[in-house]
Amino acid sequence: MSQELGITVKKDQDPSEWYTQVVKKAGLASYAPVKGCMIIKPYGMKLWESIKEEFNSKIEETGVENAYFPLFIPESYLEKEEDIVEGFDPEVAWVTHGGDKELEERIAVRPTSESIIAPYMSDEIRSHRDLPLRLNQWANVVRWEATDTRPFLRTREFLWQEGHTAHATEEEADEETMLRLDQYQEVIEEHLAIPSILGYKPEHDKFPGAKYTTTIETLMPDGRSIQSGTSHQLGQNFAEAFDITFEDENGDKKTCWNTSWGLSTRTIGALIMAHGDDDGLRLPPSIAPKQVVVVPIYQEDNQEEVMEYAEGVAEDLKDEGFRVEFDGREHRTPGYKFNEWELKGVPLRLEIGPNEMEDRTVTAVRRDNGDSEEVHRDSVRDKSRELLDGIQDSLYKELEDYLEENIREAGSKNEILATIGKSRGYVKTKWCGKESCEEEVKDEVAAEIVVLPFREDSKPATIQGSEEEIEGECAICGEEAERWAYFAKNY
Amino acid sequence: MSQELGITVKKDQDPSEWYTQVVKKAGLASYAPVKGCMIIKPYGMKLWESIKEEFNSKIEETGVENAYFPLFIPESYLEKEEDIVEGFDPEVAWVTHGGDKELEERIAVRPTSESIIAPYMSDEIRSHRDLPLRLNQWANVVRWEATDTRPFLRTREFLWQEGHTAHATEEEADEETMLRLDQYQEVIEEHLAIPSILGYKPEHDKFPGAKYTTTIETLMPDGRSIQSGTSHQLGQNFAEAFDITFEDENGDKKTCWNTSWGLSTRTIGALIMAHGDDDGLRLPPSIAPKQVVVVPIYQEDNQEEVMEYAEGVAEDLKDEGFRVEFDGREHRTPGYKFNEWELKGVPLRLEIGPNEMEDRTVTAVRRDNGDSEEVHRDSVRDKSRELLDGIQDSLYKELEDYLEENIREAGSKNEILATIGKSRGYVKTKWCGKESCEEEVKDEVAAEIVVLPFREDSKPATIQGSEEEIEGECAICGEEAERWAYFAKNY
Repeated sequence: MSQELGITVKKDQDPSEWYTQVVKKAGLASYAPVKGCMIIKPYGMKLWESIKEEFNSKIEETGVENAYFPLFIPESYLEKEEDIVEGFDPEVAWVTHGGDKELEERIAVRPTSESIIAPYMSDEIRSHRDLPLRLNQWANVVRWEATDTRPFLRTREFLWQEGHTAHATEEEADEETMLRLDQYQEVIEEHLAIPSILGYKPEHDKFPGAKYTTTIETLMPDGRSIQSGTSHQLGQNFAEAFDITFEDENGDKKTCWNTSWGLSTRTIGALIMAHGDDDGLRLPPSIAPKQVVVVPIYQEDNQEEVMEYAEGVAEDLKDEGFRVEFDGREHRTPGYKFNEWELKGVPLRLEIGPNEMEDRTVTAVRRDNGDSEEVHRDSVRDKSRELLDGIQDSLYKELEDYLEENIREAGSKNEILATIGKSRGYVKTKWCGKESCEEEVKDEVAAEIVVLPFREDSKPATIQGSEEEIEGECAICGEEAERWAYFAKNY
Repeated sequence: MSQELGITVKKDQDPSEWYTQVVKKAGLASYAPVKGCMIIKPYGMKLWESIKEEFNSKIEETGVENAYFPLFIPESYLEKEEDIVEGFDPEVAWVTHGGDKELEERIAVRPTSESIIAPYMSDEIRSHRDLPLRLNQWANVVRWEATDTRPFLRTREFLWQEGHTAHATEEEADEETMLRLDQYQEVIEEHLAIPSILGYKPEHDKFPGAKYTTTIETLMPDGRSIQSGTSHQLGQNFAEAFDITFEDENGDKKTCWNTSWGLSTRTIGALIMAHGDDDGLRLPPSIAPKQVVVVPIYQEDNQEEVMEYAEGVAEDLKDEGFRVEFDGREHRTPGYKFNEWELKGVPLRLEIGPNEMEDRTVTAVRRDNGDSEEVHRDSVRDKSRELLDGIQDSLYKELEDYLEENIREAGSKNEILATIGKSRGYVKTKWCGKESCEEEVKDEVAAEIVVLPFREDSKPATIQGSEEEIEGECAICGEEAERWAYFAKNY
């Protein structure tokens, strides 16, 4: 493979450089002139559109309507909820001029939209009949991150969906928070084939102004955890700050409960990291823009027949509903094409040369493990379906095993530090709930509590099953433990 | 109808207030705290999503790929193409601070993205094999309009698609420009049921830096024209400013030709204005979020049976693929429901009371003309299809007749002025091509040349058919005429 086309480092040896090369060479994103911003190229955009379609259909089926709220939020609105100001002020991009006129009040480019959706809800909601109110928008947001920006994983502008709901009771808001987290899990586990851990963020790390924040964490092969989506029970802070009230069945005025929840283009970063290998991307068939690539291999004297036979196979698969690329480019060798489609992570490659033509077969090669087999022409459709299903499953299974192996228990501060020092993944420990105990660890290693799992055995991540009481002492201070906490290095 | 729910002015008497009330009361949009920005409410968003889906499938079928480019453009990039600077500088929103730090270079919130897509194209294009390059993004843009902002029609932030392409030859760029204009016409005429006129913008009114700009104009009932989409042949200006070049088949370095084309949420403004009546919206079935509303009318003693019968009808229509609302709300009277769904422009209403139930019929009421008829239960599906098709056609036909009646020829400046003064619509006249002649008219009435039609009889708007040579003199200066020009008041 030419140096230009292929990935020149091993994923395991230099994950950071590997990531940068895959993003660039697989055609996912480019750097933009403003530092920390990215251009999402068509191949990357198809991944986002697929995630969007998947999640959007889930929320539409469960009562959410899409709307669009302004990019611009007046500073005075951001200031109405004091936690929001403190939480986001340091990373707001400020518009100060419109044309050549200085604005009377500076305007924030939205870092998130609670501050502008809350007053809208206040206007819209009059009666209990207006509840629940469930809105979502697919939009761009801006957070002026100072350092360590990387395409998809951490960018100053990113695309996301942000859902915002209002409810009559605390219980309904709790349910909503969990329902959306559950839907994130469906997308990430079933569509992206990445196992996950669900739980709370520690109190001091929750969304500014929220009652509590839930997170879906996924473990990357470099041993770090990625927060792949968050769902917040906002309590009544925003409702009180922005007067979101309703008249209940008895005519009494009540204050609403809110939630908000977001999933961003960061998930594409997780997808790349989670499944990629030394040859580039490996895409789960469910999300792959092209699931099958058909590559004809011919000489001058049999070009026409081979092309015709191979195109027939491709058409057959298209008719069956597969997303198929027929790569008939004449100026590229088969070897070049194999490398390119491996780089782009296409799950299944069908090689078709004169031998296959004569035997009425195709050679099917799996991207995930490189296995190849002869498939008879008549069973290409069924076999492709079977192979693609198998690839989706085994990509998930591979990571599930990896996750299982990389949750390690530690019973003391030293043990936590030692385990983080020598192993990848999560260190689970009993924790008293105090930030100071987490700080003690953070002061010594670049790891923090990334999730308080709903259950101890949250590996086959699920929000089903009640949360467990735990007994014992905090591994750090020795006081009574409140719950299990997972320490990890993170993105 | 209660004052709060219904429209309180006649469309014909006060179109501006009528428009504002429809936008608000039909639940399409709300005002946002930053002047000139809008909140697109779910019902309005469904219209945009439908337009998006319709146009997106057309461009995907014709080789365009979606991507996403940054919201932020450094000032120095905007300055690289001098026409763009001059054209957009006065309406750029400027970001000057990130967090509490002042930026070294101020950053434009994109008013359009040529300046950031051109350098990307320069990086991506190496060989003739990389051409044509066709990209599109669905995005928000900001133009700091000073005055006269109105939801959808003119807002400081709006949603749009912007297509950007690069080609090897001028001819291909010409064809691309016309193809996209043609696709706009399909969306606007077939999906939105609005007849249109296609043509060029006058030289002095073209997109900054373009070789020429084409437009699709639609005539509103208040007699003003709305530019509903534009497609630009950009020539080689951007390619030269940003070095977009390629190596041709002979290994020679050549400069590309570019196009760009955009369709925005303004089309929703045109849709509202074009079809609405004194009772509110009238939506063409093709775009209507709900095509049929089923309203059960019952007393206490027959509620259960009527509801069951009516729900059966609604389910039947849903199964048939119609978008159906079953309005079983108990706290609203049938009259209230009729008014509300008329306001929201649902094309077909099925009223179902005890009589209909006994006779095994439904009463079908058309929103466009108020006609009602009894339909037998067994033919509800076929008849609904027939009625909806009829509504789509007659909404179009109504406006087609109106457009035809409101193109008037004028042979002198005085005649132009008099015609504009006393009539709605377009005044067509022979024109020499000089801006000064247009200025003479503009100085006296609030009208300008909105389109130079491809053909004189551009009423049944089409870009097929060659452009006609004309003979005669400019109606204003008497010099040799270059082509037909349409004067109109516009949005």
